Amino acid sequence: MARINENYRKLQAGYLFPEIGRRVRAFAEANPQAKVIRLGIGDVTLPLAPAIVEAMRDATIEMGTASGFRGYAPDNGYDFLVEAIREHDYRARGVEIPADEVFVSDGSKQDSANIQEIFGGSSSFAVTDPVYPVYVDTNVMAGRTGAADAQGRYAGVTYLPGTEQNGFVPEPPAAPVEIAYLCSPNNPTGAVMTRAQLEAWVAWARRADAVLIFDAAYDAFISDPALPRSIYEIPGARECAIEMRSFSKRAGFTGVRCAYTVIPKEVTGTTASGERVPLHGLWSRRHATKFNGVPYVIQRAAAAVYTPEGRKQTAEQVAYYMANAQAIRRGLGTAGFRCFGGEHAPYVWVRTPNGRSSWDFFDQLLGQAHVVCTPGSGFGAAGEGYFRISAFNSRENVDEAIARIARAFRS
Amino acid sequence: MARINENYRKLQAGYLFPEIGRRVRAFAEANPQAKVIRLGIGDVTLPLAPAIVEAMRDATIEMGTASGFRGYAPDNGYDFLVEAIREHDYRARGVEIPADEVFVSDGSKQDSANIQEIFGGSSSFAVTDPVYPVYVDTNVMAGRTGAADAQGRYAGVTYLPGTEQNGFVPEPPAAPVEIAYLCSPNNPTGAVMTRAQLEAWVAWARRADAVLIFDAAYDAFISDPALPRSIYEIPGARECAIEMRSFSKRAGFTGVRCAYTVIPKEVTGTTASGERVPLHGLWSRRHATKFNGVPYVIQRAAAAVYTPEGRKQTAEQVAYYMANAQAIRRGLGTAGFRCFGGEHAPYVWVRTPNGRSSWDFFDQLLGQAHVVCTPGSGFGAAGEGYFRISAFNSRENVDEAIARIARAFRS
Repeated sequence: MARINENYRKLQAGYLFPEIGRRVRAFAEANPQAKVIRLGIGDVTLPLAPAIVEAMRDATIEMGTASGFRGYAPDNGYDFLVEAIREHDYRARGVEIPADEVFVSDGSKQDSANIQEIFGGSSSFAVTDPVYPVYVDTNVMAGRTGAADAQGRYAGVTYLPGTEQNGFVPEPPAAPVEIAYLCSPNNPTGAVMTRAQLEAWVAWARRADAVLIFDAAYDAFISDPALPRSIYEIPGARECAIEMRSFSKRAGFTGVRCAYTVIPKEVTGTTASGERVPLHGLWSRRHATKFNGVPYVIQRAAAAVYTPEGRKQTAEQVAYYMANAQAIRRGLGTAGFRCFGGEHAPYVWVRTPNGRSSWDFFDQLLGQAHVVCTPGSGFGAAGEGYFRISAFNSRENVDEAIARIARAFRS
Repeated sequence: MARINENYRKLQAGYLFPEIGRRVRAFAEANPQAKVIRLGIGDVTLPLAPAIVEAMRDATIEMGTASGFRGYAPDNGYDFLVEAIREHDYRARGVEIPADEVFVSDGSKQDSANIQEIFGGSSSFAVTDPVYPVYVDTNVMAGRTGAADAQGRYAGVTYLPGTEQNGFVPEPPAAPVEIAYLCSPNNPTGAVMTRAQLEAWVAWARRADAVLIFDAAYDAFISDPALPRSIYEIPGARECAIEMRSFSKRAGFTGVRCAYTVIPKEVTGTTASGERVPLHGLWSRRHATKFNGVPYVIQRAAAAVYTPEGRKQTAEQVAYYMANAQAIRRGLGTAGFRCFGGEHAPYVWVRTPNGRSSWDFFDQLLGQAHVVCTPGSGFGAAGEGYFRISAFNSRENVDEAIARIARAFRS
């Protein structure tokens, strides 16, 4: 008899987004005339920028020629992409990252899901709350937690609540943990960490000898150039931090799939006997054994994001979404909702009216305004009583959604 | 202090193919004038077929339009691809697979690496030996084995030697195991399982209540239409078998990345308390939580493999490689080598001359003939004394390699 991984059974009923999908499908089937506007899943809507399409088309044609065909990609990504990443994402901000510390992958979801594998089976970890569910769920599946309580909090996990009082940026934990996941700009709250806040986290990690997993998937939405975009802008981060970046939101790659993770060679973990081991080698081994490279045509598309045309075109897309975010904040604020985020992130985090639960409000919003949001409680217990609105849609749909919400919920 | 996953340290010095890469680079640097012919890593060489290039190009252009843009793909793959798979890979051979049992992914390497996650942390497993290293290494990384011995065999793993006596198709194990990995046509030996052999394995799995993980990545190379291509052609396999297929070798997708796994809902594992749980739901949860879909343009490319033009063009490519395989068998046979496989698989499995070790012969072949093979011992202890030659190259290079080998090793 093959025994199953019973840790999977500790997971909540459904991964958040499939559950939203199920409720929306059920509503649409029961109300076929309703024009549902989806501001739930954070999925981009603008078409790929011309510079990206041209690069991917050319690479596709190249793959059909004897001289241009490419088989297996280098494990960690083609040089042309790694060099563009080093130059534009790091050197341009005064940070030098060696080429072999960049691991190109097919998504930050995968990277943030897989990174826990290189740590010990009972390593302790902290997450901010609310939080992107993948960080927690993948640790549940690996057996690093106990069962969930009624609020969905798993035993053994250190949750750091993001609240209106702390501006949704929790301080480092007081009790020791081995690993801490951070996401800035934050999904789902839209909060962004200041340099001083990041410095405090790096100082804590070095003091506690902990590893920071820094998810910067939304860095392109930071509109204040003084705010750090990479954790490596903070001195000392090379000793304690792993960083993840994605092309999904900055360049419309949710259906194209490219991202990367940086692991400086100075970041170490320890064995039971106290020996220091660089995490870089462990991740490198995982990448070589369990991954097989990002398609050549996709890496060419990602590299095109860094060309002068690509940078201009993708910056325009980011600006388009950020104008949506501002419209959402303004519109919902006018309608009496209490809004957060949306200034350096494509997400607006909103308190539900009259203390309603997140899922209750989700159903009400869908039923009365035919608008899909993401229930805050789906991101953790501290998200209860909030919902997330995504700026990823056409301006027309955003305006229509705001108007409908204002009509349905005007107090 | 963050504890590392110490199971990684049980792994051998390097994953096989990176180690080959290192030795070839060192040789090429020391001998810059040598024209090295690579018949080592099983990487395709022919350009993508025109039908595939056209489909991928059209999908790329579509992604640049407002009406044609696609964000996140459905977790398990687009309907257009899943339906083509069901029709051509299964229904055409009399097998009906429900759509929700097909999980489209970015590679069979990844699927065969990840599948172990849904099983218990101490589940026992069997592999044939020699074997594709990923099956074993990923279980080592997950802690299901002890340390390796001098031959590279990990404690706690049931190895089933493939030998000249059993035609490199071992019988099912006598002692009980929970999971067994099979690969047919086999990498690395090129052996193919007959219907009777597959029936014996299915009967064993049902009797032992074990799960078969059937890797059919090379099914397109089966030249005898009477041989099963899918394990689901065997009655009873739906109760015990998971199947993996890939576009990598059949359509030149090693640098394009698309594959799929089938898990029938009848395949179950058990909990500690003896409850039966369908593996389908566990894999579905893993796919939703740790994966984010195959790029739209890649799925369009994969679907093009099933069009009339795509089938004709990819069949021609398979025939080209199989003609290479025949030339290798013939040429090496004439030169006095003892050869196996290469009839229903793109690999020829060859005994080293004079009882040399696999790595010794690898170095000798590289040094004297400037030809890269894969040392058999890299696939397991039972591969010692053999080497694998891949048919994935141009006919010119294959002929040149054979001529050089014959010159260097003529007895």
